[in-house]
Amino acid sequence: MLPKPLECFIREFAKLPSIGPRQATRLGFYIARLGKSAINDISSAVQGLSEIRICVRCFLMYGESFEGENNLCSICANPNRQQDIIAIVEKETDLISIEKTKRFFGRYLVLGEIERDGILSNEQKLRLKSLGQTLKKQFEKAEEIIVALNPTTLGDIEAGLIIEEIKPFAKKITRLGRGLPTGGEIEFADEDTLGGALENRR
Amino acid sequence: MLPKPLECFIREFAKLPSIGPRQATRLGFYIARLGKSAINDISSAVQGLSEIRICVRCFLMYGESFEGENNLCSICANPNRQQDIIAIVEKETDLISIEKTKRFFGRYLVLGEIERDGILSNEQKLRLKSLGQTLKKQFEKAEEIIVALNPTTLGDIEAGLIIEEIKPFAKKITRLGRGLPTGGEIEFADEDTLGGALENRR
Repeated sequence: MLPKPLECFIREFAKLPSIGPRQATRLGFYIARLGKSAINDISSAVQGLSEIRICVRCFLMYGESFEGENNLCSICANPNRQQDIIAIVEKETDLISIEKTKRFFGRYLVLGEIERDGILSNEQKLRLKSLGQTLKKQFEKAEEIIVALNPTTLGDIEAGLIIEEIKPFAKKITRLGRGLPTGGEIEFADEDTLGGALENRR
Repeated sequence: MLPKPLECFIREFAKLPSIGPRQATRLGFYIARLGKSAINDISSAVQGLSEIRICVRCFLMYGESFEGENNLCSICANPNRQQDIIAIVEKETDLISIEKTKRFFGRYLVLGEIERDGILSNEQKLRLKSLGQTLKKQFEKAEEIIVALNPTTLGDIEAGLIIEEIKPFAKKITRLGRGLPTGGEIEFADEDTLGGALENRR
């Protein structure tokens, strides 16, 4: 009953995470109504994603526009970044948040999103292994590896597993400090946060 | 900081209804990771939407595949459908639900989604006017117009406005019957539904 092109759109978009068939249907009708020029823009925006490359060292996605050398991203290819201090992050968006602080001058390893079962996927294990191999070739051991995972129960479990894997190739392994968020109020802080802030006092 | 193609994707998709910048970012990374072939599929699925036409009579979207004549959809172009009984629906998906019942043999007018303020948009007024003009040319007045809007407060308000507009060109104006849904239980029916079922008893 639906127009063929719309059915095809719904089939493709319903597969994407957090978009079900209902939202896909609504989106399809909406976009169809926008007309040729807007449809072209959206379609090329999708097509453009195929230009994105993945850094062979840290697995960060990067565009042609700020490509480094040797299939490295601009961070891994930057001689001013310390290559033996590595922050392991779950997602590209976490990396971006850390970059925005302008207080980290090492490099990264993008691990990929943590599964709900809390087990390291094969891909994640491969990425950790590849980190170990790069480090061995360059420095024997990393000065420091920061396991920059979310301070959640799942993040903590996962961090434990990661630490096991990376122990052999880091002189020091740390996690991000816990404490009160800037602008937060003691009165409203939960016990864990306040406890962390106490232990972490400076 | 984000790759250019990804920024472009986020810009386009964050504009779409019910997709914010966060979901657009996540979607972008997800699709980028799928690789060239899947990206092509998704991009052509969007592109395909530009083939969709809008019926000049009822404003239903239709694909080339089941195109009628004279820029009419297959329902409006079907000589076996009664052209002087019209169901006014809000959305294409409502039309599809009614078609699935196989109990309606008239034609439709797709009005477009009702705004939250409950006022008819200019586009909606134009569609109602165009219905009046078609009817005048063909039959003077429609036998019946069914205002097939949702049985919600907003739907009721809107139906009132629509009925005002279409009064001059319909012999009879009806709304969908209210009552117990098939399979529903009296015990759990809300008062309005049960009241409607009583009034509508047969």
